[in-house]
Amino acid sequence: MTPQLTIPTSLEWHEDHLVILDQQKLPGAVEYVHLYTIKDYYDAIITLKVRGAPAIGITAAYGLAQAAGEYETESLEEFKTWFEKEKQYLLSSRPTAVNLSWALERLERELDQAGTVNEAKTDLLHTAIQIHAEDEDMCRRIGENGLELLHDAQRVMTICNAGSIATSKYGTALAPFHIGREKDRNFQVFACETRPVLQGARLTAWELQQSGVDVTLITDNMAAHTMKTKGIEAVIVGADRVAANGDTANKIGTSSLAILCKHFGIPFYVAAPSSTFDLTIDSGDDIEIEERSSTEVTTLGQSVIAPEGVPVFNPAFDVTPHDLISAIITENGILYPDFKQSIADTLN
Amino acid sequence: MTPQLTIPTSLEWHEDHLVILDQQKLPGAVEYVHLYTIKDYYDAIITLKVRGAPAIGITAAYGLAQAAGEYETESLEEFKTWFEKEKQYLLSSRPTAVNLSWALERLERELDQAGTVNEAKTDLLHTAIQIHAEDEDMCRRIGENGLELLHDAQRVMTICNAGSIATSKYGTALAPFHIGREKDRNFQVFACETRPVLQGARLTAWELQQSGVDVTLITDNMAAHTMKTKGIEAVIVGADRVAANGDTANKIGTSSLAILCKHFGIPFYVAAPSSTFDLTIDSGDDIEIEERSSTEVTTLGQSVIAPEGVPVFNPAFDVTPHDLISAIITENGILYPDFKQSIADTLN
Repeated sequence: MTPQLTIPTSLEWHEDHLVILDQQKLPGAVEYVHLYTIKDYYDAIITLKVRGAPAIGITAAYGLAQAAGEYETESLEEFKTWFEKEKQYLLSSRPTAVNLSWALERLERELDQAGTVNEAKTDLLHTAIQIHAEDEDMCRRIGENGLELLHDAQRVMTICNAGSIATSKYGTALAPFHIGREKDRNFQVFACETRPVLQGARLTAWELQQSGVDVTLITDNMAAHTMKTKGIEAVIVGADRVAANGDTANKIGTSSLAILCKHFGIPFYVAAPSSTFDLTIDSGDDIEIEERSSTEVTTLGQSVIAPEGVPVFNPAFDVTPHDLISAIITENGILYPDFKQSIADTLN
Repeated sequence: MTPQLTIPTSLEWHEDHLVILDQQKLPGAVEYVHLYTIKDYYDAIITLKVRGAPAIGITAAYGLAQAAGEYETESLEEFKTWFEKEKQYLLSSRPTAVNLSWALERLERELDQAGTVNEAKTDLLHTAIQIHAEDEDMCRRIGENGLELLHDAQRVMTICNAGSIATSKYGTALAPFHIGREKDRNFQVFACETRPVLQGARLTAWELQQSGVDVTLITDNMAAHTMKTKGIEAVIVGADRVAANGDTANKIGTSSLAILCKHFGIPFYVAAPSSTFDLTIDSGDDIEIEERSSTEVTTLGQSVIAPEGVPVFNPAFDVTPHDLISAIITENGILYPDFKQSIADTLN
């Protein structure tokens, strides 16, 4: 325990520009990138230097607000035309990222209410800062709710990186560990490496190490044996999308952990901000699963790890059925089954 | 389907020396190594050019028999002293490999019965050839029994490489696919990559591709999603050791697949030659699980994939409890629960 231990953050606003952690370089090197032009922001998002839906949204909001502040015109109409063009430019960096469009549309609504260009510039930056602060507050509340839910559980498993570096601070699934650390509540976290992209090995192991949380890395196929022999007391995961009945889409391998939990009688928790719930989707059956390139599986860095031409199945996500989920942790409280009811009650 | 498709073999006796497939080079290159001196055999085993318990046993038997054939003496006593020394040398290459000591002790019993050095030389080579032939016959019978057990199942999942290149031919868990292919019975096999050492990606995918079996590679954490969405009808795995009650030690990740099978109602089969059963062990609780170096998990080829100094848990095997196993396929027939009874009946 040294005083240098701190929760890593994905980004920090420096008065007139944004500084982001370059997550592509992790865990080999810890480097920060200063973003000055709107092209810097676009490049940071498209090259995955910044990742995680909330962090992408916040970055894009700062990018558009910063560029707006520097755009020279007295004409509100010209300003709005410019804004629309740059908004579309940033949106095109990650077209499927929900938080990206959500953040930029929130800026646009702010712009619509402005009477002058100067007022618009001030309001846009203010909104970006607000989006940032709200996200941190949301994560902190999820962390505190999660900490309560975990009671006296000590040995907890997670997958992927629903962490501080995917958000503004604390993360979602990892928030209880960071907040716990601040309160001298010590967890022993087992991080699944999360093939094929290894977010668990590259990011979660690093992030928890940085903030002084006791973390042990395992490969994904060690989960069952680890649950049994290390006495895992809970599993906590993030969520990409939660349907109206509680079915949860998250990183591939999540549903596997939920099934193992059921077998061993271990509670399985999903940490999900309310923005993750999609009430237009009745159940997980309606969630389309993205399939990604086979080279993610067959190569690793410079190494080719499979024979040439072998067919690969590479789904990026899976759906965990609601009946395998013990509780869903939101910033507004903990939801229990029947989820259809508890989700409707909380979100409406 | 081209005429070149053949089941790869791990080794071939060439009248006066052994030729082995260099499995360390797979899947990047298919190279064969000619073994002439006893040091060549020792090196091939210790550097994992040849792997898989049966293939190691056969290789060592040929090595000792070949060197014996070339050792010049008329004195049977001197011959036996030399034999003992070289046997110990080969044994030291993989001290924990059960088949290695089993094969060399079988040669020693043969030597004990010989009246002259010349008779001993002939008998030793004959025994090595016999061990080789018996292994192939055993694998073929496991494959035929497995094929019967799989009925009309088409989509089957496996882990690690219990294949032809781990044995003399056909393998154990992979034998039904190779034999099926010879009989125009086509399977669709899903191979788990099997972290950390990637035997599924590097070896099973290659081996099945070579013999014309339809194989698709997945990462280990995709197993649950693949079972559900691809309609997996059976899982078949090898075994390192089977206890008297049927509990089975096999590559890490095996028990995870068995639990997923139970959840989805998919039969879970273990392919195990009778030499794998250890009746001195009552249950899996008595099987010690080897833990291996953390660098197997944190590095891959030239790539470092985890932060420096992160603690790692790296168990090489896990134990699948007997109550998750639907049947055990041996060369002498198929065993069903109650395994304690059926194993005792078959082996005694």
